[in-house]
Amino acid sequence: MNCIFCSIIAGEAEASVVYDDANVLAFMDIRPFTSGHLLVVPKRHASGLSTLDSDDGARIFSVAQKIAAAMRTGPLPVDGVNLHLSDGAVAGQEVFHVHLHVIPRNRGDGFGLGALPRTPNRAVLDSTAAVIRGALN
Amino acid sequence: MNCIFCSIIAGEAEASVVYDDANVLAFMDIRPFTSGHLLVVPKRHASGLSTLDSDDGARIFSVAQKIAAAMRTGPLPVDGVNLHLSDGAVAGQEVFHVHLHVIPRNRGDGFGLGALPRTPNRAVLDSTAAVIRGALN
Repeated sequence: MNCIFCSIIAGEAEASVVYDDANVLAFMDIRPFTSGHLLVVPKRHASGLSTLDSDDGARIFSVAQKIAAAMRTGPLPVDGVNLHLSDGAVAGQEVFHVHLHVIPRNRGDGFGLGALPRTPNRAVLDSTAAVIRGALN
Repeated sequence: MNCIFCSIIAGEAEASVVYDDANVLAFMDIRPFTSGHLLVVPKRHASGLSTLDSDDGARIFSVAQKIAAAMRTGPLPVDGVNLHLSDGAVAGQEVFHVHLHVIPRNRGDGFGLGALPRTPNRAVLDSTAAVIRGALN
């Protein structure tokens, strides 16, 4: 297995580390969408959400939450934050080791979602909800 | 306080519910980016990440993770999933009750990030990391 994030976690590849504990590492994205854009990753390898340990999922969110709060009160100019996770190639995942993006935001920074919302009626929403509930059970 | 998500949680406003437990509710987004797009929210009101209870943060991520996994193995055609959270108006937050978007993805669905990544050098990344580490401590 050749995973760049596992190499960073092992200290074998370069990274600009922001946070480090027994289970979680956070480091700067090398292709940031905005200044301060970083990644929070579980130290245990998991390629996607379906194989990610549930405790590790909770841990990466908690660390991302702390970092987001620190960004908004710290010296960097940060008016908002996006958290973003891509699960699967079609969702934009490029490194197959789960990572939660923390993206500091400011007016006019050029980042945003490229999408047009639809407005389905309640019957369509109820029917889709029922299918997802069924898949959950 | 007039919070539409608190009204949904209280059963006073309409929603197409996908998941419901003591602390977390998940329901369909009424302006979905893709079919199946839903929101996972803590039942306790918090306007943003800085006031969100840390356990509630872990819980909404865990529920989103379960739903994402169920979507990818269930009957809906889902090849990937994005999780997305907007903290602050400049980040696109419209309802000021924390919500984690779960957005099922398929090729050609029109959803994506509108942004151009930059490629700062290591010195810039190290310096930004140091500022964020400082804000965390």
